Amino acid sequence: MPKSPAFRRAQASDLPAIIALLADDILGQQREDASSPPNRKYVEAFQAIDSDPTQLQVVATQGDGVIGTLQLSFIPALARQGAWRGQIEGVRTAAAHSGSGLGQQMFEWAIAQCRARGCNLVQLTTDRERPDAHRFYEKLGFAGSHIGYKLAL
Amino acid sequence: MPKSPAFRRAQASDLPAIIALLADDILGQQREDASSPPNRKYVEAFQAIDSDPTQLQVVATQGDGVIGTLQLSFIPALARQGAWRGQIEGVRTAAAHSGSGLGQQMFEWAIAQCRARGCNLVQLTTDRERPDAHRFYEKLGFAGSHIGYKLAL
Repeated sequence: MPKSPAFRRAQASDLPAIIALLADDILGQQREDASSPPNRKYVEAFQAIDSDPTQLQVVATQGDGVIGTLQLSFIPALARQGAWRGQIEGVRTAAAHSGSGLGQQMFEWAIAQCRARGCNLVQLTTDRERPDAHRFYEKLGFAGSHIGYKLAL
Repeated sequence: MPKSPAFRRAQASDLPAIIALLADDILGQQREDASSPPNRKYVEAFQAIDSDPTQLQVVATQGDGVIGTLQLSFIPALARQGAWRGQIEGVRTAAAHSGSGLGQQMFEWAIAQCRARGCNLVQLTTDRERPDAHRFYEKLGFAGSHIGYKLAL
C-alpha cells in the first residue's frame, strides 16, 4: 500500500517541484518556464505569497516527494454581508497519481482550511477546456454558476 | 452637463452608500442587509479590506454622492511565471447612472490600477444570470474562457 498523502504549507525548497507540476500540464507547458535554477519571477512570486497572511501555497507530499499543489487565497469582501471567500487557484497533481483520489483529498483539506478561516464561500475558476475538471468540481458539490473572464495586460 | 465621475479608495464613511449599492441589485436584494447603522459584519469586512495592502475597495463619486463601487484584489501567484493577478469583485453602479458609461469608466480606472501594480492578468467572474454584464465585459476585451465554480459552506 502506498503511504497516504500529507498536506502542508509550501516551503521555498518545494519551489522546483511546484514549478515542475505547473509546467507538466496541457495548458501550463505553453506558459511556464521549468528551467533550473527557478526563474527569478517564480522566486519573487513565492516570497510574495509566503509573506502574505491571506495567501497559502499548499503542497501534497508522499514520503519526500511533492505530488500536488494548489494556492489558497482568503479574500475579505463586502458582498454577501461581509463574507470572507476562500479562493483556490493553480491546482495540479502529479500525472503518476491521476485517478488515485489525491485531487479529492487535496480539496477536502483545502475546504477545511477555508472553514477554519471563517470563509462561507469557496470559489475557483477552471478553463472551459478542462472537462474532466468540471466533473470533478461538480462531484465535490461546486456549482458552475458563473462565467470567468480574463483580460491579459 | 453632469460632472464627470471621480474614482478613489473608499473610506469608512462611504460604507452605508456601498451597502445600498450592493443591496439594490436583483441578486443582492436577496442576500444583503441594508439596515442602518450598518450590520457589524459589513464594518468588520470593510476594516479587513482597508487594512490589507493587497485589497482596494473603490468608489465612484459624483459631487458628494457615491454612484458606484467595486473591489480590487491584487493576488500573487506562481502560475504563468509568477504573474500577479488583479481581481475585480462586487461591481455595482447606481441605477440612475445605468447606460451613462459609468461602468466602463470604472473599469478603465480599475484596469489602470492593475497595470500600475504590475499585474499582467485581470480576472473576474460574473453570474450566468447577468447577460448584460457578459456583453459589457466582452466589449472591454475580456474573454469568457473559464467557468466559475462556487461552493457555499
